[in-house]
Amino acid sequence: MNKQICGVLPPIPTPFDANGNVSQEHLRANLKRWVEAGLHGFVVLGSNGEYVMLNEKEKICVWETARAAIPQDRLFIAGTGADSTHETIELTKHAAQLGADAALIVTPHYYRGQMTATAWLHHYRAVADASPIPILIYNVPVYTTVEIDAGTVIELAQHENIVGMKDSSANFAKMGEIIRFAPAHFSVLVGTGAAIFPALSIGAKGVVPALGNIAPRECVAIYNAFHTAQTEQARYMQQLSEARNLQLRMIRPNAAITAKWGVPGLKAALDEVGYYGGSPRAPLMPLNDSERTKLREILREAELVA
Amino acid sequence: MNKQICGVLPPIPTPFDANGNVSQEHLRANLKRWVEAGLHGFVVLGSNGEYVMLNEKEKICVWETARAAIPQDRLFIAGTGADSTHETIELTKHAAQLGADAALIVTPHYYRGQMTATAWLHHYRAVADASPIPILIYNVPVYTTVEIDAGTVIELAQHENIVGMKDSSANFAKMGEIIRFAPAHFSVLVGTGAAIFPALSIGAKGVVPALGNIAPRECVAIYNAFHTAQTEQARYMQQLSEARNLQLRMIRPNAAITAKWGVPGLKAALDEVGYYGGSPRAPLMPLNDSERTKLREILREAELVA
Amino acid sequence: MNKQICGVLPPIPTPFDANGNVSQEHLRANLKRWVEAGLHGFVVLGSNGEYVMLNEKEKICVWETARAAIPQDRLFIAGTGADSTHETIELTKHAAQLGADAALIVTPHYYRGQMTATAWLHHYRAVADASPIPILIYNVPVYTTVEIDAGTVIELAQHENIVGMKDSSANFAKMGEIIRFAPAHFSVLVGTGAAIFPALSIGAKGVVPALGNIAPRECVAIYNAFHTAQTEQARYMQQLSEARNLQLRMIRPNAAITAKWGVPGLKAALDEVGYYGGSPRAPLMPLNDSERTKLREILREAELVA
Amino acid sequence: MNKQICGVLPPIPTPFDANGNVSQEHLRANLKRWVEAGLHGFVVLGSNGEYVMLNEKEKICVWETARAAIPQDRLFIAGTGADSTHETIELTKHAAQLGADAALIVTPHYYRGQMTATAWLHHYRAVADASPIPILIYNVPVYTTVEIDAGTVIELAQHENIVGMKDSSANFAKMGEIIRFAPAHFSVLVGTGAAIFPALSIGAKGVVPALGNIAPRECVAIYNAFHTAQTEQARYMQQLSEARNLQLRMIRPNAAITAKWGVPGLKAALDEVGYYGGSPRAPLMPLNDSERTKLREILREAELVA
Repeated sequence: MNKQICGVLPPIPTPFDANGNVSQEHLRANLKRWVEAGLHGFVVLGSNGEYVMLNEKEKICVWETARAAIPQDRLFIAGTGADSTHETIELTKHAAQLGADAALIVTPHYYRGQMTATAWLHHYRAVADASPIPILIYNVPVYTTVEIDAGTVIELAQHENIVGMKDSSANFAKMGEIIRFAPAHFSVLVGTGAAIFPALSIGAKGVVPALGNIAPRECVAIYNAFHTAQTEQARYMQQLSEARNLQLRMIRPNAAITAKWGVPGLKAALDEVGYYGGSPRAPLMPLNDSERTKLREILREAELVA
Repeated sequence: MNKQICGVLPPIPTPFDANGNVSQEHLRANLKRWVEAGLHGFVVLGSNGEYVMLNEKEKICVWETARAAIPQDRLFIAGTGADSTHETIELTKHAAQLGADAALIVTPHYYRGQMTATAWLHHYRAVADASPIPILIYNVPVYTTVEIDAGTVIELAQHENIVGMKDSSANFAKMGEIIRFAPAHFSVLVGTGAAIFPALSIGAKGVVPALGNIAPRECVAIYNAFHTAQTEQARYMQQLSEARNLQLRMIRPNAAITAKWGVPGLKAALDEVGYYGGSPRAPLMPLNDSERTKLREILREAELVA
Repeated sequence: MNKQICGVLPPIPTPFDANGNVSQEHLRANLKRWVEAGLHGFVVLGSNGEYVMLNEKEKICVWETARAAIPQDRLFIAGTGADSTHETIELTKHAAQLGADAALIVTPHYYRGQMTATAWLHHYRAVADASPIPILIYNVPVYTTVEIDAGTVIELAQHENIVGMKDSSANFAKMGEIIRFAPAHFSVLVGTGAAIFPALSIGAKGVVPALGNIAPRECVAIYNAFHTAQTEQARYMQQLSEARNLQLRMIRPNAAITAKWGVPGLKAALDEVGYYGGSPRAPLMPLNDSERTKLREILREAELVA
Repeated sequence: MNKQICGVLPPIPTPFDANGNVSQEHLRANLKRWVEAGLHGFVVLGSNGEYVMLNEKEKICVWETARAAIPQDRLFIAGTGADSTHETIELTKHAAQLGADAALIVTPHYYRGQMTATAWLHHYRAVADASPIPILIYNVPVYTTVEIDAGTVIELAQHENIVGMKDSSANFAKMGEIIRFAPAHFSVLVGTGAAIFPALSIGAKGVVPALGNIAPRECVAIYNAFHTAQTEQARYMQQLSEARNLQLRMIRPNAAITAKWGVPGLKAALDEVGYYGGSPRAPLMPLNDSERTKLREILREAELVA
């Protein structure tokens, strides 16, 4: 049975000794202390684990050591992504065999011009089909300089073996859209320690902060305070929950009048909801008919028009 | 006496008639409805107001009409920024004369290569010195493709006539750093309707969402639910407030081990706090002495080391 | 009768006096020396002229002074672009009235998300229709962060009043495509002093280098050496001209297998021309049927397949 | 003895069979035809060779096959770069053992925030010291999204085992600066088929175009026409050579008044060479003393001031 993907799950670094070799000893010692600090799990060989610096043999050693050091009641998530679908599948099977609970699959990115939604849908489905363990999408534009969009993630979230996403970009518009439109069991994990609290407040299930390595107790405290409060305060939570749902309902209309269609979208939406919008000034172009129809659907879905 | 800069303050669009001329009539009618919907104020001639499409004479007409239509108990913020310091000052004085409560000053950006912290410090101080009304910094990289950094904003926030910032980028790391290190009266306004709720949860004082134009009641409801709940639930709020402060305390160490120094910064910080970090693999370079000293100061300020 | 747009045409800076006001006197004196240095013409109020820093009245003064100082046998090109189509037309008419030979119209860019080919086609055609003097498209991504593409420029070049383009990006693939597919009278001017010689070698008709302001004789010498040699050396020029035409013929197939379709495009093209290409590895996707058809047309037009 | 790195050297794709395995047979057949077409050499396992899709064992097989199929009078350049210095050295030694003439080393890039000049100097020197064969720097921002700057390349070019660079970005300012300031034997290879002719005209020694795979004869014809003409036409070449040297002399002053210091740099340079420059308008800041001194040195080196 699969474990739920939630909590504070830092991406741990890979320790090297003085000769530049992986130090299993230091890895074990660090993990022991992190476990004692109450962390809910670990991402082993994410970007902070310098996964691009290790060959396959070294990766396997690191996962073996990690498995031995991580108790069964904590999550062990292995970073197994590569630019090639084939290599990703091989690595994921390896990690599963070694006892990983889930695999974190970075977006292929070297051939960025060709990394369209089609290519990513194909990639993640092929990996999810072949993987014995659940997989998570890993979006990390600061390193990959590519961004998987909300629509593609929502589509992938229909696959029963794709159970979540780590988004390092802390893009709340995208996060909100995924939380609202993906299946309820899909876990959004935010990647930055700078947004643990606001991310939880909007419905993220966990965080994968580098910060968790150096401030594990503080990160867990933020997470726990949030959840304790949630549990104890019924009336407050109802109010807040309404606010949260309202916010989630507003994500797509917000995108429609900003990132998607800008001022022309805003003015068209004003006309739709009963204000005066009218035309923007050239060279800004008003929405065409097909865009207008899509806009109407978005406003209706968000209950801004009947 | 200056009004506090807070609440839901949408950037209103400028309506044009069929000939492409500014329609004062539609502007008045829209404002009347927005006021009735309970909005706390308005940004008049921000990016959504197509301010780059209007000449000086048209801008003045728009502000006159806005002033007449916005009740005194709501905020009237005029967008008066331009690429030239001189022109910005002239426009700001005009807006003040017409009764604006504050001015929103976009970062100069055309000569992006030269728009260093030095240039921005000079610009905003010159405008703040000359302006009869308080000013707000306006960061909107989606249009300007430049980003004013947290350090510069915090420095500018010491000026008594620079009272806040609208940040359209919804960058929670930056927002958090400013909230923690700027004077308490400094208002951070988040620019996107997609992050109203998480932004308030981390300490933003208000929002400037295009969304507020088409969904004013929904935006105000999110804002009010958050504040009502805050007022009524003492114990919950204490817990949440502790979580919030902890999160703010973590912003700078988080930046140090991610955006600023990456994996080498993470490994150095691990060594500092008592774990094993060691070296990254070449070509990643370990932190040099001066970076190490700065890192120590950051960890100390955040109470992660004594 | 319109003058041909060619030669070394530096974008001159606008001189200010100690109080920050435009100095007509220094402008006159500088122009006198530049004219003596043999420059073929001048762009007055381009980006190097700080056009975004001047109000309308100041612009008109600068153009008046420039007109008086520039002999009739040199080119006087006025920078008249603005984000609004309406304002651009007004400024262009002003410049024409003051005797400018042509107008340089920067791509509108503030609302970059909406600045599609459609918006730019509309903008440049509206300006060209209304302008009494020929206009040039001005592409300067270093400041505007937008790029008008070759296809749109080629389409605009059909308009009889759009006579050229200044491209500051020194993108030889784009330049080559425009030179090959735009009408022969269309002038491509390259904006950077770093590529005068290679740009002329591939068919650019002139250059608009900031460098021309401080090294006018050197820039003119490069231009003249190139053209003298061209005139005098018949046989060499034939060989070189064949090479040049071959290079131009290769621009589109080159784009097809690189920027446009990457490795999948390369492999498909190999199959088309008789080598083995086959499939790329997933997640790279092979070209679909419609892309394949377009590829075939490109190869045929370039005479790589029959 | 090392071969000179010049000519048309396409980056060949790696052929896969219907099962996605490397097809040695198709590789051999393609190479046979490319050799017959007169190509001067080949880059085996560059970006177009999908090097990120192959594991170490597959890479070795490809190089073995290539070595057998490439005659000794052509160049065999192996792509051996990786994100880790250690792995890069291992792969380069392998390729040398298999008979490669030189190795092409892509800039490490995944940890882009840390990929400073310092890190790259360390990386390339470590590889050059350990490599039995000469190495070439490989700059390909379209995939890596990082750019190695001219200064760092010029510094690396002092190392006797770093013999050239492939620059896929076709940045003529950078290329020109390297050609002027690197040792004469250092080979600049331009990576794009769209700029073969202008690149040769400014002093590039060769090209590495994907285009060479599908249009080998055309690419070789451009290269040969250029060189034949050069050889035969003495007087023309002298003129052109003067123009070329003048152009190269202008690269750094051009950068100083554009990319480096913008309008403030231009105005300062005008003052230096005897025109009036004066101040830019705020928030543009004039050059400070140290920048001014550097500017003077650049102008002196370029013989624009005595």
